[in-house]
Amino acid sequence: MLNGLFITIEGPDGAGKTTVMNELFPILQRTMKKEIIRTREPGGSQIAERIRKIILDPAHEEMDERTEALLYAAARRQHLIEVILPNLEKGNVILCDRFVDSSLAYQGSGRRIGVDKIAQINEFSTEGLSPDFTLYLDIDSDEGLRRIARNRSGQVDRLELEGLEFHQRVRHSYLKLAEANPERIHTINAKQGIQVVVDECFALIKETYPNFFEE
Amino acid sequence: MLNGLFITIEGPDGAGKTTVMNELFPILQRTMKKEIIRTREPGGSQIAERIRKIILDPAHEEMDERTEALLYAAARRQHLIEVILPNLEKGNVILCDRFVDSSLAYQGSGRRIGVDKIAQINEFSTEGLSPDFTLYLDIDSDEGLRRIARNRSGQVDRLELEGLEFHQRVRHSYLKLAEANPERIHTINAKQGIQVVVDECFALIKETYPNFFEE
Repeated sequence: MLNGLFITIEGPDGAGKTTVMNELFPILQRTMKKEIIRTREPGGSQIAERIRKIILDPAHEEMDERTEALLYAAARRQHLIEVILPNLEKGNVILCDRFVDSSLAYQGSGRRIGVDKIAQINEFSTEGLSPDFTLYLDIDSDEGLRRIARNRSGQVDRLELEGLEFHQRVRHSYLKLAEANPERIHTINAKQGIQVVVDECFALIKETYPNFFEE
Repeated sequence: MLNGLFITIEGPDGAGKTTVMNELFPILQRTMKKEIIRTREPGGSQIAERIRKIILDPAHEEMDERTEALLYAAARRQHLIEVILPNLEKGNVILCDRFVDSSLAYQGSGRRIGVDKIAQINEFSTEGLSPDFTLYLDIDSDEGLRRIARNRSGQVDRLELEGLEFHQRVRHSYLKLAEANPERIHTINAKQGIQVVVDECFALIKETYPNFFEE
């Protein structure tokens, strides 16, 4: 029996996921009844972190796109078994930075492997476990890339046209996922100021799961 | 266009794959027209070897069975892209120690994940590329385990009843695969003396692909 609550935060690069997590996590810690675990993908366990290192190692230029997709699914599986499931069984709340939706958007659409194919290997990885609630921080690709560029001053020239098209495919895929899963995926306009975005995220969670909050 | 020849050697533990490879490889080198590449799974490329290390690290006791299956599929993909495909494109001969059949037998049946599920993630990994020719070294599980025990003197007690049942499931799965793929999978009785086994393997390859041999 999984009595806990599994919340994920999703969005294209530049949507501000990390900033929102940093603000939202302590607010939830103060206001929710249960223990809250902040975690991220890929990683969160020793094996998953080792897989993450292989995926992210910049020396691995010859990494094939399908190898990458299988490694993400492997890291996800281990993270699920070691971190997510035991906490959901204890009734805790998981706040997770990225999950299957990211693979569907990035590998399925961004890298053009196909959303159905990525869904299939992730079905194997998760045995159908889906987040209860997903905050999707939506940002248009131009603005997302501008924000990344601002944070990496001097590296603006690396954001080429191909980068933009890739990010447009990713965003389009997220929007389609949100449309197909309106009960689970809640879209927040991430162009708004950070405080507005955090307030909206908090209100959405509280309104959907009032029993998880202190009265 | 793949003009090469893709040969795999399969079998349960204790069937003698490595010994047969050691004998067969130089004979093929002497008699075939094309370059022959001896390789193994998982591994054969830098990324695949790093994945192999994660799979085989004895410290990873908490490794989930599905994580393991996804890592094998990831290593297989990278090995395929970096080693197998480029050589088949050049018209070379690949002699590979284990491929998808091993995952079907070991993860699908041995670990009971299910052959269909393992086939699906490997279809993603290989995009349907199958070996042209598979030598299946068949040995009954009792004899296979006795041979392993002989080679690891002092560790016999680790081969428990559960080990036997696992290996029986693996062998049974191999026999079903051979029955379902009679054109591709050639069964050799590995209880015979090593020289007889090697001679049979060589004769089978030569008889099926005469054009690959010197006249």
